[in-house]
Amino acid sequence: MIRVGVLGATGYTAYELIKILLRHPEVEITALTSRQEGRPPISSVHPSLTGRLNLPLEDLGSDEIAQRCDCVFSCLPHAASAAVVKSLADAGRKVVDFSADYRLHDAGVYAAWYGETHVDPERLGRVPYGLPELFADRIVGAQVVANPGCYPTSAILALAPLLRAGLIRTDGIILDSKSGVSGAGRTPKLTTLYPECNESFAAYNVGKHRHTPEIDQVLGWAASAPVEVIFTPHLVPMDRGILTTAYAVPVGSASEAQLAAALRDFYAGKPFVHVVDALPGTKQVSGTNFCHLAVRCVRGRVLVISCIDNLIKGASGAAVQNFNWMYGFPETTALLF
Amino acid sequence: MIRVGVLGATGYTAYELIKILLRHPEVEITALTSRQEGRPPISSVHPSLTGRLNLPLEDLGSDEIAQRCDCVFSCLPHAASAAVVKSLADAGRKVVDFSADYRLHDAGVYAAWYGETHVDPERLGRVPYGLPELFADRIVGAQVVANPGCYPTSAILALAPLLRAGLIRTDGIILDSKSGVSGAGRTPKLTTLYPECNESFAAYNVGKHRHTPEIDQVLGWAASAPVEVIFTPHLVPMDRGILTTAYAVPVGSASEAQLAAALRDFYAGKPFVHVVDALPGTKQVSGTNFCHLAVRCVRGRVLVISCIDNLIKGASGAAVQNFNWMYGFPETTALLF
Amino acid sequence: MIRVGVLGATGYTAYELIKILLRHPEVEITALTSRQEGRPPISSVHPSLTGRLNLPLEDLGSDEIAQRCDCVFSCLPHAASAAVVKSLADAGRKVVDFSADYRLHDAGVYAAWYGETHVDPERLGRVPYGLPELFADRIVGAQVVANPGCYPTSAILALAPLLRAGLIRTDGIILDSKSGVSGAGRTPKLTTLYPECNESFAAYNVGKHRHTPEIDQVLGWAASAPVEVIFTPHLVPMDRGILTTAYAVPVGSASEAQLAAALRDFYAGKPFVHVVDALPGTKQVSGTNFCHLAVRCVRGRVLVISCIDNLIKGASGAAVQNFNWMYGFPETTALLF
Amino acid sequence: MIRVGVLGATGYTAYELIKILLRHPEVEITALTSRQEGRPPISSVHPSLTGRLNLPLEDLGSDEIAQRCDCVFSCLPHAASAAVVKSLADAGRKVVDFSADYRLHDAGVYAAWYGETHVDPERLGRVPYGLPELFADRIVGAQVVANPGCYPTSAILALAPLLRAGLIRTDGIILDSKSGVSGAGRTPKLTTLYPECNESFAAYNVGKHRHTPEIDQVLGWAASAPVEVIFTPHLVPMDRGILTTAYAVPVGSASEAQLAAALRDFYAGKPFVHVVDALPGTKQVSGTNFCHLAVRCVRGRVLVISCIDNLIKGASGAAVQNFNWMYGFPETTALLF
Repeated sequence: MIRVGVLGATGYTAYELIKILLRHPEVEITALTSRQEGRPPISSVHPSLTGRLNLPLEDLGSDEIAQRCDCVFSCLPHAASAAVVKSLADAGRKVVDFSADYRLHDAGVYAAWYGETHVDPERLGRVPYGLPELFADRIVGAQVVANPGCYPTSAILALAPLLRAGLIRTDGIILDSKSGVSGAGRTPKLTTLYPECNESFAAYNVGKHRHTPEIDQVLGWAASAPVEVIFTPHLVPMDRGILTTAYAVPVGSASEAQLAAALRDFYAGKPFVHVVDALPGTKQVSGTNFCHLAVRCVRGRVLVISCIDNLIKGASGAAVQNFNWMYGFPETTALLF
Repeated sequence: MIRVGVLGATGYTAYELIKILLRHPEVEITALTSRQEGRPPISSVHPSLTGRLNLPLEDLGSDEIAQRCDCVFSCLPHAASAAVVKSLADAGRKVVDFSADYRLHDAGVYAAWYGETHVDPERLGRVPYGLPELFADRIVGAQVVANPGCYPTSAILALAPLLRAGLIRTDGIILDSKSGVSGAGRTPKLTTLYPECNESFAAYNVGKHRHTPEIDQVLGWAASAPVEVIFTPHLVPMDRGILTTAYAVPVGSASEAQLAAALRDFYAGKPFVHVVDALPGTKQVSGTNFCHLAVRCVRGRVLVISCIDNLIKGASGAAVQNFNWMYGFPETTALLF
Repeated sequence: MIRVGVLGATGYTAYELIKILLRHPEVEITALTSRQEGRPPISSVHPSLTGRLNLPLEDLGSDEIAQRCDCVFSCLPHAASAAVVKSLADAGRKVVDFSADYRLHDAGVYAAWYGETHVDPERLGRVPYGLPELFADRIVGAQVVANPGCYPTSAILALAPLLRAGLIRTDGIILDSKSGVSGAGRTPKLTTLYPECNESFAAYNVGKHRHTPEIDQVLGWAASAPVEVIFTPHLVPMDRGILTTAYAVPVGSASEAQLAAALRDFYAGKPFVHVVDALPGTKQVSGTNFCHLAVRCVRGRVLVISCIDNLIKGASGAAVQNFNWMYGFPETTALLF
Repeated sequence: MIRVGVLGATGYTAYELIKILLRHPEVEITALTSRQEGRPPISSVHPSLTGRLNLPLEDLGSDEIAQRCDCVFSCLPHAASAAVVKSLADAGRKVVDFSADYRLHDAGVYAAWYGETHVDPERLGRVPYGLPELFADRIVGAQVVANPGCYPTSAILALAPLLRAGLIRTDGIILDSKSGVSGAGRTPKLTTLYPECNESFAAYNVGKHRHTPEIDQVLGWAASAPVEVIFTPHLVPMDRGILTTAYAVPVGSASEAQLAAALRDFYAGKPFVHVVDALPGTKQVSGTNFCHLAVRCVRGRVLVISCIDNLIKGASGAAVQNFNWMYGFPETTALLF
């Protein structure tokens, strides 16, 4: 049994993570951290866990965490996360980091987009980007894995295979993405108050969203050439799910069928990505670790529609998928539900 | 033209109020207050008002308000409201108070439920309860009117006529009420964060909701006898609307048709209450000042289903209806939309 | 491995059932029926099952079903279901029937509420009511089990223990229930069209809902005395979940703590019912087989708030829980997710 | 008083239209048509109109309609609408046609996209396209006006001024549009059943939506050059509202401020279009006839975000705005609410 800790256990991704870990036959949850005082039971924050997990939320330091856990999932915010991850990794623990801290390989790009000097720059570039559909070989046995952002997962799964196959151009990529509100986290704020965002649809952070450089980096890797995407996030009045409508300029004249075949080839043997014929909606992947993709050609442009659950394939499911690869467990363990 | 001010202009009820006032041919809005600094334009808080109302939010004292306005709508929280209302009324201004401060006639009951010593106890009992369907005669020409709570409006309109007619008993009344989330206000908090209350339905403040004594008081007045209701509020994942399912024990053996006729008689000539045959849903009164009522008899119990829009008939529409009565304007002025 | 068939596999309960069965280590799904022509793959109706279940929807007769399956879950409508269940049971197959056909013990009551003459009246009363928290001893080894209605499950779990313990009276019970829209099924109709029921809350079938006699029957059994409840169903703009607010008159003067203790005692060792302290919302049991109960005493009345997921504990989860008891598998098999 | 008829009065756009017409001081509603039998009162279909409009739904022929009405709003489906509009126009009545029948100037394009031979091809091209912000001069005094589609309204208002000013290129325009569910109409179907589209987000009719040629035609007119847009509609789980994210390639190097100024200049004196600084959400125009636009420049691409209420500015509000221009009433009559 792997002794597992969850840092920052009060948020939505941590909640989904805990539910997955409770199903995992090789995992024992041994620590849940939070800055809340008084060691409240986890069920007081997530009442759904009543009778299913009797652990308190504790305000633990790195040493205590390292003592109790073999592997740690950090759901802490960026910057705060790297500080703890560094300690835990230096102490020989395995870590899946949900924050953006280890996703970008260049500390300068990190500083430019996140406004922070990185506290652990030596590890950047050596930590694999935790998208097993692309980087499973690097994740096997890794000590630290950078769990991808939710938007990047939806965008990269849609376009990386087509860039890799040279079927679309590296310039002119537009990613029009739409996310449910859980992606904005569990801290009360006006923009995600129910009567503000219910029955409304809006774009936000246009041209400024921090997931942009992460998408550039991985699509650039796939294309073996620089990529600069135009990425527009929108907020949908629903709990969960991301749909990305990706627009790209084709190279040559591949048909819809050929493009779909290229995607199917790429994802052959990869259990969590399916290329579907009918246009997918987010609900059909909601609550699952699956990504559904569909391709269309419209007036000389290639469209790929990509659907994931932002909290599962976009966060906690991907984290356990990474965990399975890190430890050599079957990739789908605890992830078919 | 009546010069009108709105105190606490950033919330949802104030927003609906402003839209109604903009339609009112006898009104000029002359002051909007808020504690926000820097005199931001109202459209920065309510972007829907862009190009429709060019007034700043100002942090004004009572004197300045009294100078600028003939009539003031106070959307301030309880206790804070009474302090200002007292000054404005003492200065001869008319006031419609949205808070609970002048609804209860007994300062002791007020203190027991609101935990505050009333700052203006002399006015209690002299200020009419602003439900024109019951108290229009007292509201005509009044200086201060206590705008009713949203739940009480839905409950009282359902049962007061039947109590008055002696058709139901004063004991054993159960009010199972369901409200949209806007009723909880615009201050960010965890319970009304989108991913918390969306796709969920819950009871809250069971046995403790502060609208209880207000319902007791007015239904007691209707019955000419003490009434103690069991009132259970619930939160519905929708923006607006209240449906109250009222259960009462009949006196005698009136049929559904006779009970409906009693309600229709009571509301004859009252433009905003309709007794309907089919079971009403909140949507059919959403965005209106109407209340729809339906009666059913089930296994010896009388049920009245009552629907209103909590922000309009439950707050801002009622306030303008009161204003119309106070000033002698036709009751429906600015309220048919 | 038990070979399992699902009859009427295109609806919401069948979809949830299939997902649970796919997780069950002792089950192999061998037949999915529907009247649709052309043997379409199940993933064409439920795209979420793409890559997870490769079976067609088939229009099969009883003989073919009996040949392929050891146990059958019937999600057919009432009347249609009994006809098939009778054949399958006569052929020695085990059946969990989701319809109302075997829930009522009296064919006359069935005829009165469902307007049909029962086609298999001999089995009525011998088929256990599939609420294992009350009737596990009868379900063990049963050939046919009548899976309970969703509203009855939420209501009975709330009140049966208190009636059994003599803590509440049998008369004056009011059940104010609220359900998500999936309870209305997957056949397109105006009342459940998105723009009709979204942002609205309404009561329906007041005094006429067919779940009424089923609640009467089981609560009457618990009380060992006739019970006639007042049951009012409402539609909530959300996908899933039922909250029932149950009002009852206490016998004697039990405190909230004593009533909660009585519930806790009753459900000791029963893994799917939890008595919680904070008022529960439907979201905390959404997607689970759990029922959360809370008790309050208000002005001399006992309130029990009960939350379930209508599609899981109110239908498909309960069905597999029954299946587990019928076959002697651990009760929670495939049901902790 | 203009005697006005509404054809096809049971749908959502007709309902919004009736509410607006009830506020219009120059209008008397004299006919409401529907194919429903038995002359049911309009309030039986739209209970919100209880006590506000006492007219039956009638199955009337063109002659009867022409006799009763000076002006007719046709909310009939395409093809069915043209047949009636032709008769009414030939009889000298004024018509605002909500269908697509008179929007396209080329009967061949109409046949290609709508699969029907046009029954009134002589009028094509002579009927003005009812977007007063562009074509008020043609709408003044017109006999028939083609009310625009909802998506085209949101897209054209965003881009026509920039094309007209030569600030963006005619090729490479991408319109990623998102609409609330009311846009799909009131006929029950599986795709808009509540549990199907709630909590889901999906693209539909990609590359095939019939609003495409209408957008091409009007943007081509604005650019004085052929335009072929890539238009992708999506369904948002909300009642109403359209947000279009328009992507275009700039000509030259206009800044965000210059582009916004170009839009502001174009819409100067036009009361229903506002260029706003903060990114708009659909809620801020919900229930209004306003369109809010915002401009952003991202990595060398111009983005215009456009928000309207699909039922008001996208349908019924625009229709009354056209009516006001046709008859010479002030443009905002009945439209500020």
